[in-house]
Amino acid sequence: MVNGRKAALLERARRVKLVLTDCDGVLTEAGVWVSPRGEEAKRFSLRDGMGVERLRLLAGIETGIVTREDSEIVRKRAEKLGIAELHLGVSRKATAVREVAARRGLALPQLAFLGDDVNDLGAMEAVGFSACPADAFPAVKERAHFVCQSPGGQGAFRKVAELILLALFGETPRF
Amino acid sequence: MVNGRKAALLERARRVKLVLTDCDGVLTEAGVWVSPRGEEAKRFSLRDGMGVERLRLLAGIETGIVTREDSEIVRKRAEKLGIAELHLGVSRKATAVREVAARRGLALPQLAFLGDDVNDLGAMEAVGFSACPADAFPAVKERAHFVCQSPGGQGAFRKVAELILLALFGETPRF
Amino acid sequence: MVNGRKAALLERARRVKLVLTDCDGVLTEAGVWVSPRGEEAKRFSLRDGMGVERLRLLAGIETGIVTREDSEIVRKRAEKLGIAELHLGVSRKATAVREVAARRGLALPQLAFLGDDVNDLGAMEAVGFSACPADAFPAVKERAHFVCQSPGGQGAFRKVAELILLALFGETPRF
Amino acid sequence: MVNGRKAALLERARRVKLVLTDCDGVLTEAGVWVSPRGEEAKRFSLRDGMGVERLRLLAGIETGIVTREDSEIVRKRAEKLGIAELHLGVSRKATAVREVAARRGLALPQLAFLGDDVNDLGAMEAVGFSACPADAFPAVKERAHFVCQSPGGQGAFRKVAELILLALFGETPRF
Repeated sequence: MVNGRKAALLERARRVKLVLTDCDGVLTEAGVWVSPRGEEAKRFSLRDGMGVERLRLLAGIETGIVTREDSEIVRKRAEKLGIAELHLGVSRKATAVREVAARRGLALPQLAFLGDDVNDLGAMEAVGFSACPADAFPAVKERAHFVCQSPGGQGAFRKVAELILLALFGETPRF
Repeated sequence: MVNGRKAALLERARRVKLVLTDCDGVLTEAGVWVSPRGEEAKRFSLRDGMGVERLRLLAGIETGIVTREDSEIVRKRAEKLGIAELHLGVSRKATAVREVAARRGLALPQLAFLGDDVNDLGAMEAVGFSACPADAFPAVKERAHFVCQSPGGQGAFRKVAELILLALFGETPRF
Repeated sequence: MVNGRKAALLERARRVKLVLTDCDGVLTEAGVWVSPRGEEAKRFSLRDGMGVERLRLLAGIETGIVTREDSEIVRKRAEKLGIAELHLGVSRKATAVREVAARRGLALPQLAFLGDDVNDLGAMEAVGFSACPADAFPAVKERAHFVCQSPGGQGAFRKVAELILLALFGETPRF
Repeated sequence: MVNGRKAALLERARRVKLVLTDCDGVLTEAGVWVSPRGEEAKRFSLRDGMGVERLRLLAGIETGIVTREDSEIVRKRAEKLGIAELHLGVSRKATAVREVAARRGLALPQLAFLGDDVNDLGAMEAVGFSACPADAFPAVKERAHFVCQSPGGQGAFRKVAELILLALFGETPRF
């Protein structure tokens, strides 16, 4: 990365007070296991889970999920991680993001949003810091401030969390 | 891709009114999770699911599944995606494809078929636009009009959907 | 591959009347999904399943599984594929392979064995044609007659099946 | 590897009498399958399982798991593998490692520890031989004595087991 671009990126990351993220394709690798009973399971990364925890414990930054799906699977994962904002069944993500910001008294540049597909573009363009996994849809990768080296479900969220911590602390803090 | 070949490919894609696809190895990565109770689950891509939806909502193009397996798993996935044609337990896919075309009043050049293995070749040769995942059987890759860069279960179907949308709209439409 | 080596390999493959294979790491990618209830599932490739079927229908060659594990999961998969020889809980695989050959009236050069780990070496050395997945244990890769380009659980068995069919028919037969 | 470094590494490995390891991200690829009922499954490698067995049967070296999670899944896996030390819900891993050593009458240089994330660093620095998977957190890779070529859940533990056996026997022993 050119140094000027990296400095601008860290500046964006430094302002973040709340990290919002899509679920499928970001916290998971966009896969769903279907059994004869229907949607059975999704796969999450425990390294991402530690990213959620590190943001909270080291920097007081909460994480929220904004997804179009309405799934008990996501509810269970959010519960385990202590997700502060859980918005399921959202068709207009930019609107949801603005409402969360207003309710929490945050300015939009204080929000981050991670997305991977075309229906995330609105939310990504609304916030101060947008990021996407390495395997996001091409149009999403073109527009994100930060394209993680890891694909969805394999540590992309964690990369964003560590970038924010690096921006705040000047180094990668131990737990 | 040479420009002439790409233009010919987009011309094939532009004619498509119905997309038919094999399931295992195209909508999934050809894997099946087996438990002590038998075939337990298959993994589908939610990015493919959004491809099905985008084809329908943006272009009025329906999707169908034609597979040799007869599995409640596929039925459940088809239901969730609102699949218009579901043909399970099909041993002669080319025949099934021709019947679907006749019943719907479509000419064969208006159909697309995605397959990954030797038993898909007949159906692929019957239609106007044939495609396969990056990891399809070699003989299938040789004969497909379009070899997706993504493997089965990891967005191959979506690549075909976006190619058709690109052919119709001249650009990648937002949702 | 040097042409002389390829010819020798096809000659070995041409003699095969029965294909025996380890399960974990060959028919699966050596993974096991563990739930709070214990060993829950293993992942198999449907492309391998078609290899079992093509060997039987096109060449009258049956397939058998010889594994150290004693798992209902493998029993269920073997049942689905119509596996002719199923040997679970086998600690000395070379002995089991010799017994199968004797009972079926086959000479050892008429058997193939696919393995991936050190406990498969004895059986691999006993038969006429030994093969292993791309990700087999180094000592196994060194000794196998044929190292498949695909890893275990992702089509390694199918590669062996197609090599045998190629040896018999001089080309890849359609289904 | 430079020869001097490899000799030093083998010397560290030769002293090991007990191998301790983190679970998530080392014995698994840091993934968790979540169903509508909660954490449903984790994926383990059977090649790692054979590493645990080979260490025990060939060298009398036991294996232990030290993890922050408290999960019935890990308990079930540990039971299957005959894990000698199982420590769940551990927040301070270095302390747990020292207690295990003291109770067993082992010196810390006789212990190995495998970790993948920042909360493993303390334990890794406490023991004589530290290792991590290829996809460990960057700060962990920088500090480990041995970075396995395999990622977590795909044979990283096995690589460590075989290195110890190589150090003891001067070659890779058959089972």
